[in-house]
Amino acid sequence: MSTSPAATHPTDLLLDALKRAGSPVCVGLDPVLERLPEPLKPQDATNASAAYAIAAFSCAVLHAVRGTVGAVKVQSACYERFGAEGAAALDCVCREARELGFVVIFDAKRADIGVSTEHYAAASRALDAQFTTCSPYLGADGIEPFLAHGQGAFALVRTSNLSGDLLQSLALADGRTVAEAVADLVAALGAKHIGASGFSSLGAVVGATKRDDAVKLRARMPHAIFLVPGYGTQGGTADDVRACFREDGRGAVVNASRSILYPRRAGGQSFEDAIREAACTFRDEVAAVVRPLETACG
Amino acid sequence: MSTSPAATHPTDLLLDALKRAGSPVCVGLDPVLERLPEPLKPQDATNASAAYAIAAFSCAVLHAVRGTVGAVKVQSACYERFGAEGAAALDCVCREARELGFVVIFDAKRADIGVSTEHYAAASRALDAQFTTCSPYLGADGIEPFLAHGQGAFALVRTSNLSGDLLQSLALADGRTVAEAVADLVAALGAKHIGASGFSSLGAVVGATKRDDAVKLRARMPHAIFLVPGYGTQGGTADDVRACFREDGRGAVVNASRSILYPRRAGGQSFEDAIREAACTFRDEVAAVVRPLETACG
Repeated sequence: MSTSPAATHPTDLLLDALKRAGSPVCVGLDPVLERLPEPLKPQDATNASAAYAIAAFSCAVLHAVRGTVGAVKVQSACYERFGAEGAAALDCVCREARELGFVVIFDAKRADIGVSTEHYAAASRALDAQFTTCSPYLGADGIEPFLAHGQGAFALVRTSNLSGDLLQSLALADGRTVAEAVADLVAALGAKHIGASGFSSLGAVVGATKRDDAVKLRARMPHAIFLVPGYGTQGGTADDVRACFREDGRGAVVNASRSILYPRRAGGQSFEDAIREAACTFRDEVAAVVRPLETACG
Repeated sequence: MSTSPAATHPTDLLLDALKRAGSPVCVGLDPVLERLPEPLKPQDATNASAAYAIAAFSCAVLHAVRGTVGAVKVQSACYERFGAEGAAALDCVCREARELGFVVIFDAKRADIGVSTEHYAAASRALDAQFTTCSPYLGADGIEPFLAHGQGAFALVRTSNLSGDLLQSLALADGRTVAEAVADLVAALGAKHIGASGFSSLGAVVGATKRDDAVKLRARMPHAIFLVPGYGTQGGTADDVRACFREDGRGAVVNASRSILYPRRAGGQSFEDAIREAACTFRDEVAAVVRPLETACG
């Protein structure tokens, strides 16, 4: 996949990649040992064997979904769990993803203050990831460093899990919810980083399971790309994600992880073929939400 | 340093360690290349050289402050920046800290949902850290896994930076601030994890620079240990931290990082001696806040 020569803004690159793939979807790499296909399961319990196994599986997934999706979201925790070997696997997977033309979202949910956030942003740059997910609890300090050096970020605004409500749904004295206040912060911080596409390099994580909220958040962050987790296994449907898009059918990238990585396999089907098939179905379901698509798959 | 044989609850271990050291303080390991003592500066720009340098410096700090402070807070970002080599350095530093008898707080500010938080908690366990710092934005899902397997955690409640106010100071419709709502969540989640000391294994990060808030938060979280950053370089004073302690002089551990790691050196003084001296001063300043202490230092 080649990118348009003019695009260097991370969101322009992302939108280009999604357009080429024909659907605003991304596949989440959340590899866990217990669910690896039998041939890839590690033979012993060392971190090195585990890291090799998840690296091999992740790269197999990348090759399986190449040409079907334009972006991948790499879950830091799955690699970090295996220490230095896991970090080496993460580096290898991110580089292979970039080599294959994917836009890479490093799903790290990091944030700190001062120079520590800059360190995290540098770590993400070293992985050659265009985007990092970050947490808004520390305010601008935990977000802005991720937008330096041409990188982009997605700040957590409304997460797909139930217990996120404990904080994100609380009503403020001014009538907003906490999530809406964070959305306003994201919109304000992102206003300085808008690319040729009209979208900012600071986007927002808005779960597919929070449809009513998504409508309101969409209105508060017109220039933010929504990264939408929770599709598939977590219960979000194609209909649920509609609210995350603007009326012009732009402005969101929908992620699926487990439903793609660990699909049901027809008898004799290779895991790679099952993954490709699941990715095509996912791509087509989401494409059908936003616009008619030519589906040249399979 | 030996621990009392009965203590296995992480907060009991922490309080034991602070008591033995004679002051409720911890030293933050936030090593950055630019500020390393001349002999330890890396000779080239590879991650390996950088990681060796920060590992060597971190271990030198551990030996310098041994016997003066009971706990160390290890800043993940400083190591993570250097990829797999940085992760190996982090592992080495945490293990050396434990070997030397320190209680280790892994300052990672992690959180995610579901199995991803469990992965992060497993990564922290693999480092043999007793505590991990975590972010509350995802609710209980981002906190509770860090309390499994006998580990403890400190959830961000009120951070020491100015831009944290953008979210944490917002007024809720019910009269609380966002930080107070998080404090109530921390108190509720922590109630299930109270040790022999009367304190929970779920503590709270409350910055030394937020004195007025600390008074209110202290009342809302009577069983939480406060991890108090911001002392020294960030502007918090001994007087400011008083509000983080309960009336009985218990319930907080005060952290200093840069003011200890990079002290002014008297002519001809080794960096190790300067660090030890800075740690002693810090220890004594904070001890003077909570109770008269025998200062056998130096």
